Amino acid sequence: MKENRISDNVIRRLPRYLRALTELEERGEEKVSSSELGRLLGLTASQIRQDLNCFGGFGLQGYGYNVPTLRVAISGILGMNRGYRAVLVGVGNIGRALIERFQFNDWGFTLQCAFDIDPAVVGTSQRGIPVLDSSALPEYLRENRVDAAVLAVPAQEAKEVAALLRRCGVEAIWNFTNVDVQPPGSDVIVENVHFSDSLLALSYFLTEKREGQKSAVEQNG
Amino acid sequence: MKENRISDNVIRRLPRYLRALTELEERGEEKVSSSELGRLLGLTASQIRQDLNCFGGFGLQGYGYNVPTLRVAISGILGMNRGYRAVLVGVGNIGRALIERFQFNDWGFTLQCAFDIDPAVVGTSQRGIPVLDSSALPEYLRENRVDAAVLAVPAQEAKEVAALLRRCGVEAIWNFTNVDVQPPGSDVIVENVHFSDSLLALSYFLTEKREGQKSAVEQNG
Repeated sequence: MKENRISDNVIRRLPRYLRALTELEERGEEKVSSSELGRLLGLTASQIRQDLNCFGGFGLQGYGYNVPTLRVAISGILGMNRGYRAVLVGVGNIGRALIERFQFNDWGFTLQCAFDIDPAVVGTSQRGIPVLDSSALPEYLRENRVDAAVLAVPAQEAKEVAALLRRCGVEAIWNFTNVDVQPPGSDVIVENVHFSDSLLALSYFLTEKREGQKSAVEQNG
Repeated sequence: MKENRISDNVIRRLPRYLRALTELEERGEEKVSSSELGRLLGLTASQIRQDLNCFGGFGLQGYGYNVPTLRVAISGILGMNRGYRAVLVGVGNIGRALIERFQFNDWGFTLQCAFDIDPAVVGTSQRGIPVLDSSALPEYLRENRVDAAVLAVPAQEAKEVAALLRRCGVEAIWNFTNVDVQPPGSDVIVENVHFSDSLLALSYFLTEKREGQKSAVEQNG
């Protein structure tokens, strides 16, 4: 298993493959060459072939890839056909935005319910998702299969709630708190949405564009 | 310039370097070796040295890196000392969450004001940030220096607002709409916060953990 491990970069490109293939399929394209797919993704043809070979290849020489077959294969590799069930903890602005606007179903997840401590939202329903009292969370997790929890509580509560989720057997946390909630050695899967990393990348590219990275280094090195 | 281009992977690791160095500095550490930094970041010592060499190195053999110097250098490379000014367009849930909870200042940005079309929020102020009417956006951009725009409007308005921002000379868009707003050939910097890519990565890792990627491929290939 260890030696077959796929690199993180390849895994993080898979959703982009999926988007490109979905678009091709919607346009009625039946097949795609690695160079065409590369153009869509800003990668070389050889990179595309290398990436897909990690999963056993899917292409036929001289033909390319069958679009629907490859899309279904990649969505399967991504686990989108596993019927994962999620709960959301923390119905603040971020939590509410996710409930109201994020299409969990499109990505293979069912959002079962949400939890909050605020009596103003507990007992309500947001876009059909019931909001339960956070005190009921441990019992809910005991009695229901939950594959992943969306963590959207305020930063100061992040570690405590994450620890509770782990104790209750939740294997994966989608973390919006900007706090590192994974203790060393824990095998819970934590996927962080670090807004600041993204803003800093933007800041870097803007700086590079304006000044050229070379002069930026001279200024700071 | 082209041949000196730093790889995207290195750039996207820089915010993680910054986090690790900030923590070390807060703990009062003066210096750090590449192997220690590697442990903190889950990278090898040689990877650390390679990454930092892209920017001209910063280490001294047998000493390692000076923590405050390296932190300041990396924050400079990331453009955090440029005093960038941003506006936010779309004060829905995501927009409001960013205004209320995201510390733009910590990352070198000043959020100047926000824009929305909803009369219920126009004229109010969120955490000290005034919300102006969207119709005033072009004039605002003409009369004020704005380096980046945070795009948090509903998906159906995303492309139109992005086009307006480009026409008004905004060079960088931090895009929360889950819509691809960069037309081919445009040199506007668009940094996407694609929630779905992150959820699919979580889904992949959960699937891999539960079933082993090998059997997942057999099932889907």
